[in-house]
Amino acid sequence: MSRADVVEGIGDDAALLRPPHDQQLAVTSDILVSGVHFFPNVDPESLGHKALAVNLSDLAAMGAEPAWFLLNLTLPKADTHWLEMFCRGMFRLAREFNLQLVGGDTSRGPLTIAIEAHGFVPPAAVMRRTGAKTGDRIYVTGTLGDAALMVKHREGKLQLPPHVLAVSSVRLDRPTPRIREGMALRNIASAAIDISDGLLADLGHVLKRCQAGARIFLDRIPVTTTCRSQLGQAGWDTVLAGGDDYELCFTVPPGKLEALEKLQFTCGFRCIGEIEPEAGIRIMDESGQPYHARITGHDHFPSSEKQVI
Amino acid sequence: MSRADVVEGIGDDAALLRPPHDQQLAVTSDILVSGVHFFPNVDPESLGHKALAVNLSDLAAMGAEPAWFLLNLTLPKADTHWLEMFCRGMFRLAREFNLQLVGGDTSRGPLTIAIEAHGFVPPAAVMRRTGAKTGDRIYVTGTLGDAALMVKHREGKLQLPPHVLAVSSVRLDRPTPRIREGMALRNIASAAIDISDGLLADLGHVLKRCQAGARIFLDRIPVTTTCRSQLGQAGWDTVLAGGDDYELCFTVPPGKLEALEKLQFTCGFRCIGEIEPEAGIRIMDESGQPYHARITGHDHFPSSEKQVI
Repeated sequence: MSRADVVEGIGDDAALLRPPHDQQLAVTSDILVSGVHFFPNVDPESLGHKALAVNLSDLAAMGAEPAWFLLNLTLPKADTHWLEMFCRGMFRLAREFNLQLVGGDTSRGPLTIAIEAHGFVPPAAVMRRTGAKTGDRIYVTGTLGDAALMVKHREGKLQLPPHVLAVSSVRLDRPTPRIREGMALRNIASAAIDISDGLLADLGHVLKRCQAGARIFLDRIPVTTTCRSQLGQAGWDTVLAGGDDYELCFTVPPGKLEALEKLQFTCGFRCIGEIEPEAGIRIMDESGQPYHARITGHDHFPSSEKQVI
Repeated sequence: MSRADVVEGIGDDAALLRPPHDQQLAVTSDILVSGVHFFPNVDPESLGHKALAVNLSDLAAMGAEPAWFLLNLTLPKADTHWLEMFCRGMFRLAREFNLQLVGGDTSRGPLTIAIEAHGFVPPAAVMRRTGAKTGDRIYVTGTLGDAALMVKHREGKLQLPPHVLAVSSVRLDRPTPRIREGMALRNIASAAIDISDGLLADLGHVLKRCQAGARIFLDRIPVTTTCRSQLGQAGWDTVLAGGDDYELCFTVPPGKLEALEKLQFTCGFRCIGEIEPEAGIRIMDESGQPYHARITGHDHFPSSEKQVI
């Protein structure tokens, strides 16, 4: 992968890049820590894929087109086979979305991956977390819950049958960043976010920024038949609060619904509710009764140790 | 610190930035790992300073003007006092160089810091590792060796007297990135690098890229009087191979020497030798005899486990 806008990639003190004149630069960064974000014995090829995918998912949520990334990797030892597999997963995804690795750093240390991804987005087309208004419809791409089932299975909290494992493991380990969908939603979505911490937590981020609330309907939330078959033991909270599917949650004003309906996403998209003026998320179950989720999303620190940055 | 070119900083899926139309974007990233790059009990204010400084030093070596940075931080627990001190050190340096924090990620995990720094440089003015030619003079800014003394002291390999400790601890813990110097050297230096792994290793990187060699003179290498007072026990290898001073090493063609001599650096600069066609670095001691260094620089992996990326 060699892009014309990379003047100098790896090999000098810094990469030298030529961003396009007419677009803004979208920059995002995520850390994955062994034992916190992934199981230490995870397949390195999947890990390489996922480490890049979670960053591309953030770019997708802005409607950005990916361009460059930097890899910061600390490893307990330089295991050549492990690194080759990790790179295979990472670079396959990079090629798919026309991304070039332009820098980073490697060091001995506990297994930790921090990737920084850069993309471009025309100023008028960018999707932010702000922008959703009362009456806007709330949508999600693809399906939710499969990845969360897999997390619970690996934690020993659920026992999944083989046909469910086959679906869920791919969703958890090799998420597909919704880049094409994010770019297609430019000038249509009023707000967007990627669902990394769970639908309720991430929709909550949007609502907080928009000073609004929402009503969503359980029977509209898209789940696979395999996921639905496990809801008896796993419960709807797994779907509502489980992150890791890396779908997009976005809002669309009534005037843009016609344009939206013309879009064709391989992964599909579905309206799950509507923005309301009153703060909070009201969830309606299949019988029209309020549903109260007991867990709302992922938090890397216990509540007594909140992040202060 | 709020820059006009930051459309969206922290708070959305990605930062939105407006790079200047007429300049290239320089991007660099460094990891600092507890127990590898710093002692676990290091003062957090110094660590915050240093984590940003090492990245700014890379921008300085390209002649770039710093603009934005992202912080990826993993911490065993969210210790509010520790974080406040870390941020104090980091943001004081950021303010000094007009940098804005625009994103990043925090997580629970072993103490690791990965910062990505962005800067701008006019295409015609950028300094690369390539570009040095036979006959170009080799220079370094400031002084070398003080930080390396401190590393040896903390490792228990040297005993430094208090007046040396006072100088050396500041050089190791609060290095000054040579940003102003790097920008002043635009259009003058033919090649540049920052000395993070040691003079011999970093000059070696330049020579390898330029397919050239060098002759340097021990008696021209700038050292402080405190450092010189310790050379009896520490040896010249400490100065030649010790990193962590974060000075610039740069080359200047004969036709640019007049322009160079007009520059006034607070930290000073000194010619230490010359580029030669024959590969390798030939070191001359004070009596004009060849000096053979036993160690050449820093390597994060033992030789049997080299980096493969």
